[in-house]
Amino acid sequence: MAASSTRLSGIFTPNIVPLDAHGDIHEAELRRYVDWLIEKGVHGLYPNGSTGEFLRFTVEERRRIIEIIADQTRGRVPILAGAAEANVKETLKACEAYHEMGCRAVAIVSPFYYKLSPSAVYAYFKEIGDNTPIDVTLYNIPMFASPIDVPTVRRLAEECPRVVAIKDSSGDLPHMMRMISAVRPVRPDFSFMTGWDAALMPMLLIGCDGGTNATSGVVPEITRRLYDLTLLGRMDEARDLQYRLLTLFDAMIQSCEFPEGFRAALALRGFKPGSGRQPQSPSQKLEVEILRNELQCLLSAEGFVNDPVGGCPAGQATANPDDVARIVAGVVEELRRLGLAT
Amino acid sequence: MAASSTRLSGIFTPNIVPLDAHGDIHEAELRRYVDWLIEKGVHGLYPNGSTGEFLRFTVEERRRIIEIIADQTRGRVPILAGAAEANVKETLKACEAYHEMGCRAVAIVSPFYYKLSPSAVYAYFKEIGDNTPIDVTLYNIPMFASPIDVPTVRRLAEECPRVVAIKDSSGDLPHMMRMISAVRPVRPDFSFMTGWDAALMPMLLIGCDGGTNATSGVVPEITRRLYDLTLLGRMDEARDLQYRLLTLFDAMIQSCEFPEGFRAALALRGFKPGSGRQPQSPSQKLEVEILRNELQCLLSAEGFVNDPVGGCPAGQATANPDDVARIVAGVVEELRRLGLAT
Amino acid sequence: MAASSTRLSGIFTPNIVPLDAHGDIHEAELRRYVDWLIEKGVHGLYPNGSTGEFLRFTVEERRRIIEIIADQTRGRVPILAGAAEANVKETLKACEAYHEMGCRAVAIVSPFYYKLSPSAVYAYFKEIGDNTPIDVTLYNIPMFASPIDVPTVRRLAEECPRVVAIKDSSGDLPHMMRMISAVRPVRPDFSFMTGWDAALMPMLLIGCDGGTNATSGVVPEITRRLYDLTLLGRMDEARDLQYRLLTLFDAMIQSCEFPEGFRAALALRGFKPGSGRQPQSPSQKLEVEILRNELQCLLSAEGFVNDPVGGCPAGQATANPDDVARIVAGVVEELRRLGLAT
Amino acid sequence: MAASSTRLSGIFTPNIVPLDAHGDIHEAELRRYVDWLIEKGVHGLYPNGSTGEFLRFTVEERRRIIEIIADQTRGRVPILAGAAEANVKETLKACEAYHEMGCRAVAIVSPFYYKLSPSAVYAYFKEIGDNTPIDVTLYNIPMFASPIDVPTVRRLAEECPRVVAIKDSSGDLPHMMRMISAVRPVRPDFSFMTGWDAALMPMLLIGCDGGTNATSGVVPEITRRLYDLTLLGRMDEARDLQYRLLTLFDAMIQSCEFPEGFRAALALRGFKPGSGRQPQSPSQKLEVEILRNELQCLLSAEGFVNDPVGGCPAGQATANPDDVARIVAGVVEELRRLGLAT
Repeated sequence: MAASSTRLSGIFTPNIVPLDAHGDIHEAELRRYVDWLIEKGVHGLYPNGSTGEFLRFTVEERRRIIEIIADQTRGRVPILAGAAEANVKETLKACEAYHEMGCRAVAIVSPFYYKLSPSAVYAYFKEIGDNTPIDVTLYNIPMFASPIDVPTVRRLAEECPRVVAIKDSSGDLPHMMRMISAVRPVRPDFSFMTGWDAALMPMLLIGCDGGTNATSGVVPEITRRLYDLTLLGRMDEARDLQYRLLTLFDAMIQSCEFPEGFRAALALRGFKPGSGRQPQSPSQKLEVEILRNELQCLLSAEGFVNDPVGGCPAGQATANPDDVARIVAGVVEELRRLGLAT
Repeated sequence: MAASSTRLSGIFTPNIVPLDAHGDIHEAELRRYVDWLIEKGVHGLYPNGSTGEFLRFTVEERRRIIEIIADQTRGRVPILAGAAEANVKETLKACEAYHEMGCRAVAIVSPFYYKLSPSAVYAYFKEIGDNTPIDVTLYNIPMFASPIDVPTVRRLAEECPRVVAIKDSSGDLPHMMRMISAVRPVRPDFSFMTGWDAALMPMLLIGCDGGTNATSGVVPEITRRLYDLTLLGRMDEARDLQYRLLTLFDAMIQSCEFPEGFRAALALRGFKPGSGRQPQSPSQKLEVEILRNELQCLLSAEGFVNDPVGGCPAGQATANPDDVARIVAGVVEELRRLGLAT
Repeated sequence: MAASSTRLSGIFTPNIVPLDAHGDIHEAELRRYVDWLIEKGVHGLYPNGSTGEFLRFTVEERRRIIEIIADQTRGRVPILAGAAEANVKETLKACEAYHEMGCRAVAIVSPFYYKLSPSAVYAYFKEIGDNTPIDVTLYNIPMFASPIDVPTVRRLAEECPRVVAIKDSSGDLPHMMRMISAVRPVRPDFSFMTGWDAALMPMLLIGCDGGTNATSGVVPEITRRLYDLTLLGRMDEARDLQYRLLTLFDAMIQSCEFPEGFRAALALRGFKPGSGRQPQSPSQKLEVEILRNELQCLLSAEGFVNDPVGGCPAGQATANPDDVARIVAGVVEELRRLGLAT
Repeated sequence: MAASSTRLSGIFTPNIVPLDAHGDIHEAELRRYVDWLIEKGVHGLYPNGSTGEFLRFTVEERRRIIEIIADQTRGRVPILAGAAEANVKETLKACEAYHEMGCRAVAIVSPFYYKLSPSAVYAYFKEIGDNTPIDVTLYNIPMFASPIDVPTVRRLAEECPRVVAIKDSSGDLPHMMRMISAVRPVRPDFSFMTGWDAALMPMLLIGCDGGTNATSGVVPEITRRLYDLTLLGRMDEARDLQYRLLTLFDAMIQSCEFPEGFRAALALRGFKPGSGRQPQSPSQKLEVEILRNELQCLLSAEGFVNDPVGGCPAGQATANPDDVARIVAGVVEELRRLGLAT
């Protein structure tokens, strides 16, 4: 079917933005990174998303990021550009700018900070959907922004031809099925992308068209292969790869402030991401340091980098809480000695 | 491998307990229900779970329920008996009783009401695991009880041979993968059962051994077929069935107080579940009434029952919020007239 | 007004139940504890509440606890007896039993485990309120049980003369005001008790009639004095006392599993509470040990006990996260050495 | 004590920004509104806060808002200027600009969207606190942004002399006491402001210095009088006023999307707030319409405006859920007829 053949699909990489020593956009490194991702086989790029820390850049910087990436990509892969701005008027201006830069579509996160009702979320996207010159992907990330519920997605899909997809980062598989169930009958060209790397394979199996997955910015080889194997129905290989991707994803997402883990991993892959814009406390820097060692072991197990100096542990080890209790007792003692605890 | 061949697996049905006009256990109907389930192909029975409203029965009644079901089953299928009681001593007494009745294993829900830390959850199951005469299935249902986290499952699996499985009703697929990843290397005989019908197929695909699924008490034909098709790798058929099961599951679980929706559906399948033990307000009775009609349409679409009097709607319909707004405006007006709203 | 003069009021102590070496009810110690509390001036007793771990006793034990306390109290102070059982029929039997034992009223917690809607919570209490022979206090504790919302309280107050009070442990002050606002005009005899010791003084100031406060089982001198000073309008003294009570409350409630902190404090006051019924892991025992030292310092500062061996720290100390980071780095190193962490 | 005499204190009004027919800042109306607030006795102004919808304006507009308000105020009352921007560098630029405009201090909300750990929240404010030329008020609003916990407030208070206050909108009274307890001994000049109007009186009674309360932008007469009466110890009058303020606050905050209720109330007080920048659906417009009528009744009861056409209900009415059930049954019927529900 014609409509469905043009659905957004495949793995779109949420772009991290390398920064230089002054904290400004490191254009040369960003261009080098774009080339590397395309060579590694990602199906598209997704700048100005959560991984791309869109909120920590100025309006002008967000435009510049898209400009650089569009220029470097030169149409080799489609670009999905994050376009959320302060209000609908500003967001529509961004839509126009990214349209002119040749982006395939924009992604617009649901209103955040204020917690909006479904009715208000609808009104927001309806206004955008009716006035945008470029296709719009709804972006649902309920841990950070007002949730977009199933009736709202369906209603927008029915009323706004320019709304062509949803990127859902909830990781909730039945929720994805409910959306597909509600929307596909009325809009076969509508695309469903998952933003939750931990469930990429099962999401594809129940009908998702692809993903915007932060791990693909670090191990594009794995996400691409996982996508291909799943579509080919090679279940055992795909399952194995999904488990390995989960291990990597958990390491990067659970060990320190998002998206610092991804930034640390990118450095291990040979890029200079620079320091993020959010100030870090000494304890945060320690977390990243610990993670870096763990990541190097994980990435060397995948054959992407060398073992760290000092080597890696043989197997998975889990702390025994009672050994931990004993150790903690020692720590408490030291804290007391220092007058830091009572 | 020998150990793994004896893993708990397949679909275990959480038993609803039919009640008579006095609110007492309706033994004859319960026995008839057990026979029907076994004939329809469920792999095992799971009485005294959440669907079985274990908490709303007395200690003596809980024993009696297992006794009746064990007697009626006569070994045709294994029984997983819910055994949580007021404290560890009482729970262990129940373990002994169910062991003597020939149950295959018990399922013990994590401590509820008080929200316990992982360390306390560990201590609770460790005490049980070290003293039970019968195999134990951990029961994780974080929406109702203290969560059992991954390190706790792994530690109990390593230390307690009698702890042989976990039933997880979180519906969180990556969480299930994290458990499998942490436990299977050290305990290949350990079984992972999902309690979230909405994701049964993907859970099986990433390595679950089966499920304890409330829908199997109402449409055992579908859950059994979904299980078989998934294991056979017949993806398209399995996916289609999972979508249909989700529709049924959502109808039963979202429309009224759990587990009244399942009770209503059971009545449509020709049983006399009786009224539940929880008193119902007029508005709740209305909800059940509305659900009954919807369920009859869903079950008739599956060929299990006749259409309701008056017929069913042709396709899926979704309310347009603005039509709703107009209607609600009318309602508000009527409420005002009645002095019920200001 | 006659009705309002009989409102439940003052500080009701949630009774901890001392256990002997076998984990059974330690009757002699319980009787001694009851006498001590009454001598220290508490206005009433409240057995079988959350602090009393009602859920961890059997039906027969719960009855026995009330029997002992009623017998020992001999009418010196009113008794508010926790009466929640497995279902409405069993709960009503408990109401009758406690009525015959001479209790002033029962307290019934909202249904727990299952999360019920307001309409279902209403139906539950309505059934009880219409059939109880003894006055009923609704018990709202949303962190553990289904919340009782304002319209439900109002409706029950209007329809059920036997429902005479609510004990609210949410700690949400505006919520308490909303309840008072909605109910007092229609039921001036209805009583509002707070279960959140951390806000006792402000709750009394906005119109509460008293509290059921776990700290009153440990430092009844303070809670009584705080109550009296607040009613006398001696704000500065009351505020000072409320701050000191908060420090004690936080120590007992945040340092270990509820209600172990209260049990530990009771031991410091000269009673033998015994070990709780919930098994404890080594790390939990360590927590209690650390808390015991801290509590002894806090209680000695109040003049209730001697300083612990080794003395107490001079002032409040707070750990500097970066010193902690340094220490944690050392711990991680040791964990690695032990193979407990990767 | 000198330091403490200069503490920020009193009621600071979070400014709503009137918009004209094009959705741009309505400067003349904003100036008129500033004069009115000052005449009514508010102690200070607080533009670019949550009520002021700081996020929905551009960088330039946020500067312009402060500029207009500072110019119109001409030093009559202190200005607390919301200064959060995309990142620390941009935020510091705003601090400098507002310092030059003569603001008394800035308020900076904790990082939002991403959920940051306490350690990261510390690092963020530490960087600002060490480099700002103007006093900083921390702004804790956990329902919208990363929470600022007690140790973090204490640490910042100890390390950064320029951090002089916290505005806390959690409404959690014991949390406020914990902060006061931890910080006042080390920084007697540090100010504690509550942003939760529903608990203004009790917050002042336990030691808060004042509030930044959205209701003061609508009924400054009430908030000012409540503040004065509470400080004078006229408890009965203060309590009565707090109850009335709660009713108004609840109406404005619970009936529609924040801060539309405050905007609607401002219109009733004779100003032209214009439409907010967030698009509204028909059902939202209906909500505001219903609220407007209710607010007019509440404000006329306080003597601020006339009764609405058609009058107000005599007393508080509460809908009986069973009448509602009956009505809802009718609605469902109509929805079915329209094909909107199944």
